[in-house]
Amino acid sequence: MTHSPDASVTVLGLGAMGRALASAFVHAGLSTTVWNRSVGKDTELVDAGAQRATTVADAAATGGLVIVCLLNHASIHEVLDPAAHELRGRAVVNLTSTTPEEARELAAWAADHGIDYLDGGIMATPDMIGGPHASILYSGSTHVFEEHRQTLELLGTAEYFGDDAGLAALCDFALLAGMYIMFAGFYHGAAMVRSAGMSAKDFAGRAEAWLTTVAGSFAEHAVRMDSGDYSTSDEQTLVFTKSAVDAIVRASRDGGVAPHVIGPVKALVDQQVADGHGMEAFERIYEGLITGQESDR
Amino acid sequence: MTHSPDASVTVLGLGAMGRALASAFVHAGLSTTVWNRSVGKDTELVDAGAQRATTVADAAATGGLVIVCLLNHASIHEVLDPAAHELRGRAVVNLTSTTPEEARELAAWAADHGIDYLDGGIMATPDMIGGPHASILYSGSTHVFEEHRQTLELLGTAEYFGDDAGLAALCDFALLAGMYIMFAGFYHGAAMVRSAGMSAKDFAGRAEAWLTTVAGSFAEHAVRMDSGDYSTSDEQTLVFTKSAVDAIVRASRDGGVAPHVIGPVKALVDQQVADGHGMEAFERIYEGLITGQESDR
Repeated sequence: MTHSPDASVTVLGLGAMGRALASAFVHAGLSTTVWNRSVGKDTELVDAGAQRATTVADAAATGGLVIVCLLNHASIHEVLDPAAHELRGRAVVNLTSTTPEEARELAAWAADHGIDYLDGGIMATPDMIGGPHASILYSGSTHVFEEHRQTLELLGTAEYFGDDAGLAALCDFALLAGMYIMFAGFYHGAAMVRSAGMSAKDFAGRAEAWLTTVAGSFAEHAVRMDSGDYSTSDEQTLVFTKSAVDAIVRASRDGGVAPHVIGPVKALVDQQVADGHGMEAFERIYEGLITGQESDR
Repeated sequence: MTHSPDASVTVLGLGAMGRALASAFVHAGLSTTVWNRSVGKDTELVDAGAQRATTVADAAATGGLVIVCLLNHASIHEVLDPAAHELRGRAVVNLTSTTPEEARELAAWAADHGIDYLDGGIMATPDMIGGPHASILYSGSTHVFEEHRQTLELLGTAEYFGDDAGLAALCDFALLAGMYIMFAGFYHGAAMVRSAGMSAKDFAGRAEAWLTTVAGSFAEHAVRMDSGDYSTSDEQTLVFTKSAVDAIVRASRDGGVAPHVIGPVKALVDQQVADGHGMEAFERIYEGLITGQESDR
C-alpha cells in the first residue's frame, strides 16, 4: 500500500540539519510549520513559505507529522515534555542524534504519553538532504514508518530496521564512528606528508582515491569477521602487517606526528601477534575490540 | 622523449607482491628473471615463461632493470649487499615497504656502490597490479624513472615525487596509515552493530557507501588544514562534534565494544575544546597530531 506524502509537517529545531529538513518539505510543497528555541533561525524558511510557530504547543497543534531535530537527548525532553498533552495521538519522528539507550528511553516516554514514536539516524550532512546520497535509518513504530514513508523519502532514502527504537541509532552511531575514525586517519596521513612539504589539499585527492578503493575490501573482511575464522593462505598476515604498522609508527614519529590514532591500531595488531595469531589475517584485530560478555569465541 | 619498455627485467623477492609484479612483466612479454630466497615460489612464473635464477648475483647478471620486493629494510641489505659488485652501474627500483629514512639510507648505500637507485611505494594490493586502479609512487633517481618509466607503467600508474628517495615512502606510509586506521574504524562500527545482531557483511555494504561518500569532503577539510584557520559559520563545531563523539563512546561501551580506536578521537576533540577552540571546525583535531618542532602555528 502506497501513501501520498503528508499534507503538513512540523519541524522542531532549526539548526543546520533542522533547516535542511524543513527546506526539503517546503520545496516539496508541504505545509511546513517550524519552531526553534532561539529566534532568527527561520527567516529564510518563512520567506520560502514555512509557517512560524512561537511555541512548541502551537507548532504541535497544527497537525501532521512532527519531526524533531535538536541538539541531544536532554534537549528533546526539555522541548517535548511541556507539550506532551498536545502531542498525544500524534506521530513523532526523532532525528536528533541519540544513543540507542536514549532512543529506547524516548520511545518508552512517548508510549507513556500516547505518542507514536519513530527514531531515525541521518546518514548525511545538511547539504545532502533531499539529494540522491542522503540516507536515513529508522526504527521504532512500524505504523509511523509505513504511514509516513513517502514524506520521509523526501529527505533521503528511508530504511526501516525494526520496532526496537534503538536499532537505527546504533547503526547510525556505528557508521559515524567509522567516519570520525576515518577522518582522523586522513589527518594523520596529512600530518605525515606535511613534514615533507606536501599540502593537505594535494594529499586529500590521493587519500580520497586510495581509501575509496580499499573500502571495496570491507565485504571480504566481513566474511572472516562473521565466521570468526581468520586463517589465511595470503602472505599478508598479521606478522606482515605488524612489520608495516611498526614502520609507519616510526616514520610518523620521525615526521613529528603524534601516534595518537595509529598507536592503538599497532597495539591491536601487537596483541593479536602476542596471543599467537601472527599467521592469521589482519582483520582479526576486530576481535580485540569486542569486550567482556561479547567475547565468547 | 618516450622510451619503449625494457627488453628484460629482474625481480628479486617472490612474495605475493613480488609474484604479481613479475607476472605483469611476463604477461607484457618482457624477458623476466626471478629469484627468491626460499624455493618453490617461482613455479607458476617459470611455467608462464620467466627465467629462474638460483643466486642474486646470477639474477643481477642477466642485465636489465632490477626490481626489489622483499620483506623489509633489513632483508634488502641481506640480499643486495653480497651482490653489490654485480649491481654496479645498474638501475635498481626498490618496491619493498620501508620508512622514508630507510629509503634514504638505501639510496646512500646504492650511491656508494655506483648503483642508480629509485624508491617506490605501491598503492595497490597484489591482485590490483597491472590493473587500472594500481598506482605506484616513486622518488630518487630521476634518470632511472625517466629511462624505465614505460616498464614501470606496466605495473600501475607511475608518479614521480622528486630526487629525495624518502618522499615516495613517506606518501605511501601516509596513505597506508589512513587505510589501517579506516579499517579499524570499520571494525569498530561492525563491533557496535554486532551487539544488535547485524552481520559484518550487512554492515560492510553500508560502511563502504557511507565512508566513500564522506571521503568526498577531504578536500574541504584540507582548506582549513592548509590555512590553519579553523573558524566556521557552520553549526557543526567542535562542541557539536564533542556531543556526538561522547555519545558514540557511551554507546560503544553499552554494546560491549572497547573504545581503543574511538577513544583517541574523543581525546583529540576534548583537547581542542579544553584549549578554547570549541566554536571552531572539527578538522582542528589535525593540529593535535602535529608535535614538537612542527607545531609552529
